[in-house]
Amino acid sequence: MKMLPLDWRVVLVRPRNPLNIGAAARALANFGLHEMFVVSPFDPVWREARSAVGAERVLKSAQAVPTLLEAIGDTPLVVGTTAGSRRNLERDLLSLPDLPAWLQARKARGRAALLFGSEKTGLSNEHLSYCHALVRIPTGVDCLSMNLGQAVAVCAYELARSGAVAVRPPQLTTHQSDPSDLQTNEHVFERAARVLDKVGYLKPKSRKPTLIKLRRLLLDLGLTQSDARVLGGILAQIEWGLRLRNDDL
Amino acid sequence: MKMLPLDWRVVLVRPRNPLNIGAAARALANFGLHEMFVVSPFDPVWREARSAVGAERVLKSAQAVPTLLEAIGDTPLVVGTTAGSRRNLERDLLSLPDLPAWLQARKARGRAALLFGSEKTGLSNEHLSYCHALVRIPTGVDCLSMNLGQAVAVCAYELARSGAVAVRPPQLTTHQSDPSDLQTNEHVFERAARVLDKVGYLKPKSRKPTLIKLRRLLLDLGLTQSDARVLGGILAQIEWGLRLRNDDL
Repeated sequence: MKMLPLDWRVVLVRPRNPLNIGAAARALANFGLHEMFVVSPFDPVWREARSAVGAERVLKSAQAVPTLLEAIGDTPLVVGTTAGSRRNLERDLLSLPDLPAWLQARKARGRAALLFGSEKTGLSNEHLSYCHALVRIPTGVDCLSMNLGQAVAVCAYELARSGAVAVRPPQLTTHQSDPSDLQTNEHVFERAARVLDKVGYLKPKSRKPTLIKLRRLLLDLGLTQSDARVLGGILAQIEWGLRLRNDDL
Repeated sequence: MKMLPLDWRVVLVRPRNPLNIGAAARALANFGLHEMFVVSPFDPVWREARSAVGAERVLKSAQAVPTLLEAIGDTPLVVGTTAGSRRNLERDLLSLPDLPAWLQARKARGRAALLFGSEKTGLSNEHLSYCHALVRIPTGVDCLSMNLGQAVAVCAYELARSGAVAVRPPQLTTHQSDPSDLQTNEHVFERAARVLDKVGYLKPKSRKPTLIKLRRLLLDLGLTQSDARVLGGILAQIEWGLRLRNDDL
């Protein structure tokens, strides 16, 4: 089975050290990845990251966005990285060397995002709830946690060595049978949350973890563009019905 | 064929940036490598490398030595890294993903050294003449040259993923049929150089490149400990004979 090269976007979520941003950009340039998004970087001077020798193009085209959803909204596949020490992930952890086979089995195509959390805290459970898979770089017990710039380099190397990086970003037209992108999924999720709020399913105390679970569940359904449209329509209808009923009361 | 895990020593030759030393140490700790040598580091504060979170043990046990030979003298196998832009290497370049198979085919066992040159210049031809193989991290044309700390991380990852890293350094007894170590090789080389000087083979203008070639040639012979002893004995005898003759004149 041949690996389908993907159009990768690397997303750094709230990185604290501009040197790491530069180092990440350089690693992308080294391994033929082109696109970087940075979610709410702490340091406004992140563009001046000094260690980005030769990575000017990646860094120049990098986008800083305030929320994760803005960084991954148009991608149908999101892979999160984790040191694996966090509990209750409710997702199988892939070891990085096994990621290419997973992508192949899934017949992933088109855009994909690879997320890295901040140096201190990694990705939060909220961030992880957007991920279809979690990967862990197989580090040893002596020192589990990797430097951010080095982690990006190792992941980019593994993707490139296994043929999972598209040399030129493919120009894709979207089909109804394609996996729905994250933004579309999120619209369905928000509608579902409003409906569940209205029927009193979401309790104030457990609201946040329940919503995180719901988002994961929705991702796991593997909706196509067409599925998402149908499901969104059904939820809209329910919402409308509930409003009517509430108005009646 | 099973990969024989090797006892790796990573050698940084004249690194300029203490941050990179720390980053290299951390990458070793991440992937279960234990030993680091630093050849004539520019900065005397290299031990204070700041980014070495979790790599204290590697960094503490790291040795700074004045010459490359002191860093690799006791290893029978030396692999150099290069960005591959240097000409006249007179060695085949292995792409990093192909290194494990090369090690396996060679039935490499025991100690092995992996060399990294300085950030600015990489390894010199002189340094490369000590190497049995050269590896290149397969970076793309957009940005060929990698950051030193990231290069170390990627190499350590590849070695660990392919099972080429010994979990615990094996306690080896040396056999006559084992490959000769670099120090033994260098003794033979020095004797050979003295003989060649005496018989007027080495011309002042071409002396250095000729010696570099000679060292490579000697490495390529793949001498065993026993071979090296025999060859050293023969050269000593020739040297003695030449001295007698010279005394006669």
